[in-house]
Amino acid sequence: MKEVTIIRRERFSSAHKLWNPDWDAEKNESVFGGCSNPNWHGHNYELIVKVAGEIDPETGFVMNLKTLSKILNERVIDKLDHKNLNLDVNFLEGKRTTTEVLAVAIWAEIETEITQSGGKLTSVRINETENNSVEYFGEK
Amino acid sequence: MKEVTIIRRERFSSAHKLWNPDWDAEKNESVFGGCSNPNWHGHNYELIVKVAGEIDPETGFVMNLKTLSKILNERVIDKLDHKNLNLDVNFLEGKRTTTEVLAVAIWAEIETEITQSGGKLTSVRINETENNSVEYFGEK
Amino acid sequence: MKEVTIIRRERFSSAHKLWNPDWDAEKNESVFGGCSNPNWHGHNYELIVKVAGEIDPETGFVMNLKTLSKILNERVIDKLDHKNLNLDVNFLEGKRTTTEVLAVAIWAEIETEITQSGGKLTSVRINETENNSVEYFGEK
Amino acid sequence: MKEVTIIRRERFSSAHKLWNPDWDAEKNESVFGGCSNPNWHGHNYELIVKVAGEIDPETGFVMNLKTLSKILNERVIDKLDHKNLNLDVNFLEGKRTTTEVLAVAIWAEIETEITQSGGKLTSVRINETENNSVEYFGEK
Amino acid sequence: MKEVTIIRRERFSSAHKLWNPDWDAEKNESVFGGCSNPNWHGHNYELIVKVAGEIDPETGFVMNLKTLSKILNERVIDKLDHKNLNLDVNFLEGKRTTTEVLAVAIWAEIETEITQSGGKLTSVRINETENNSVEYFGEK
Amino acid sequence: MKEVTIIRRERFSSAHKLWNPDWDAEKNESVFGGCSNPNWHGHNYELIVKVAGEIDPETGFVMNLKTLSKILNERVIDKLDHKNLNLDVNFLEGKRTTTEVLAVAIWAEIETEITQSGGKLTSVRINETENNSVEYFGEK
Repeated sequence: MKEVTIIRRERFSSAHKLWNPDWDAEKNESVFGGCSNPNWHGHNYELIVKVAGEIDPETGFVMNLKTLSKILNERVIDKLDHKNLNLDVNFLEGKRTTTEVLAVAIWAEIETEITQSGGKLTSVRINETENNSVEYFGEK
Repeated sequence: MKEVTIIRRERFSSAHKLWNPDWDAEKNESVFGGCSNPNWHGHNYELIVKVAGEIDPETGFVMNLKTLSKILNERVIDKLDHKNLNLDVNFLEGKRTTTEVLAVAIWAEIETEITQSGGKLTSVRINETENNSVEYFGEK
Repeated sequence: MKEVTIIRRERFSSAHKLWNPDWDAEKNESVFGGCSNPNWHGHNYELIVKVAGEIDPETGFVMNLKTLSKILNERVIDKLDHKNLNLDVNFLEGKRTTTEVLAVAIWAEIETEITQSGGKLTSVRINETENNSVEYFGEK
Repeated sequence: MKEVTIIRRERFSSAHKLWNPDWDAEKNESVFGGCSNPNWHGHNYELIVKVAGEIDPETGFVMNLKTLSKILNERVIDKLDHKNLNLDVNFLEGKRTTTEVLAVAIWAEIETEITQSGGKLTSVRINETENNSVEYFGEK
Repeated sequence: MKEVTIIRRERFSSAHKLWNPDWDAEKNESVFGGCSNPNWHGHNYELIVKVAGEIDPETGFVMNLKTLSKILNERVIDKLDHKNLNLDVNFLEGKRTTTEVLAVAIWAEIETEITQSGGKLTSVRINETENNSVEYFGEK
Repeated sequence: MKEVTIIRRERFSSAHKLWNPDWDAEKNESVFGGCSNPNWHGHNYELIVKVAGEIDPETGFVMNLKTLSKILNERVIDKLDHKNLNLDVNFLEGKRTTTEVLAVAIWAEIETEITQSGGKLTSVRINETENNSVEYFGEK
């Protein structure tokens, strides 16, 4: 079977802080360092999504990248871009806003619609800075 | 067993269009959008190939990257660079020139010679733009 | 005077060839090499525009980057992206489609509207590949 | 005279919003769009500073880049990184936190110490995203 | 099980040469080309390490990236950066300094401490140039 | 006059150390830090050269970038790539191998031939790492 993977990059710029409400400020600061600044900080995040599938012989596509981009924008980018990840995003409510948690939460937001469009979601990667990234491959 | 993967990037600049000759212009335009422009458009493509193997204790190499680069240039880059993917490339004749199809076709062009050079081809990735890429891992 | 420069990057993917119609094919090939392929080739171009001006104390902007981006998209990107620079672009008609000529032609397309928006166009840069670029600073 | 320019890149990740307190929320939203989100958003900023001077024949340096980096970190990065540009930064108090204003304010913070170290500050550039940047060359 | 992968990039600038002491200069030159220059050459290497694990519900982290960065700096970067890979590095003694050998050797240096910190090392990638890279996934 | 600037990037990978032979090891270490390691270190350098001129109406070129690339390769890259800047390069003999000195020395190597080819050399930039660069604009 000739399964091919398509890869789409989107970007969003958001504020957040790392904060565990069960801990006092001192403990938050000792674990999360500058990332716990009460007044927030932020990043230009890159979201990189991989979808596998067989090539449609008529189009030569696994899935039209415009369809994938539309899913990513409606489900993720429109909700995260120029937002506060801790305050403004319904699907992150009550969660830590680490890149790890973000990757798992984004997977849950997009998997069903990608499956319905005929693809198989295989990876959600988030680059938080040029040095720090996270990748999630789904439950095993 | 200590299998290590070597990774080589090459580049080519080509014209192409996405076009299904069984469809009329209107259908092509509705599926492929601007990519179906009859007068072509083009890209700076990046080709990234991964080859796995054991390290030769005498050289410290899985395969000399110059050998891999030579294979990629003779089999792929010389045929695609500054060419029209729809008109000028014998191994793409009659095919859609999507990045998906391109990745599978390039795999077929290079696999035998890489095997004969003692490596195992494990991935062909093509970056079409900074946001759109495809990766092919061979038949399973 | 506190003049500040704002810088906006846009991208377009186009086909072109380098060809002087006063020369025969052999001469075109000897001067332009692979760039003269009659069946075209193409690039992912980056357009980087610089506009200088004083900061508006109310907005903190020299010019809203959305205004600048809108000018660049309407005047340039919509006309060049997924097009053939030699065949599809009215403002390049009869011209060589080298990056040099492109930079000068783009300057002419956008200068007036940028001036009317209150900025001073100071540079048009085009990156044709990761190694080859051109920059134009206007007539002196 | 052989004047040479040295260039140093530093990075900081900050939250901010674009907001004019003399305007109501509606006007702020109409001018600044998503950038006026009351709950903030953020970026990975790149700061690129250029310093010109003659080469010291003993060291071969215009200025030791470690000295320049130390000035930039003490005067700028330590105050902006993992902070809120609107709330946490004394030298931005009462100002718009556009990239334009930021570049001019950073120039004022670092110019004297760079001069005292024997260099001439010639440019402060800030990349806010991969598409949006600002450069300031000082008063003329 | 929700296993997530964190990814950390570090950099080091080193001198090295490719040289097999069992061969004469001519054979070294014929196999390694310019890389066998007796007076050395060098690179800006990028080290990219992937560590998998489950998310700690209290922190939202697989592992604090500061912990991972500290391991990489103490075990690898401090020993390789601004050093000669052939002469200055105890864990490379008597080895070829190809990128393949380097990746396997770095894996051996860091695996235990990463395991003790609660993560599972899954990949060591080294970019030697923008075109040449190596990735090692451990013994199978 | 319509003067346009063309920009060409080349790359070289070299070993070097920063060392003043008039100083003892301790003083070299205190000034140059890790860069004075007696066993050398190295970098992937990027050389970016700018050449200005009028557009030739027949070719659309300021100068054929292949001509510029040939000059840069013959005069600079072939002499520096996979070499030791302190030991192997005739035009750096007796000089510090800082990026500043390198930029001025490369200017001297290429200016005449670029002028003879009809262009005006306006900038030599060297990126030593992703954070440290130097630019030289010639004597004033």
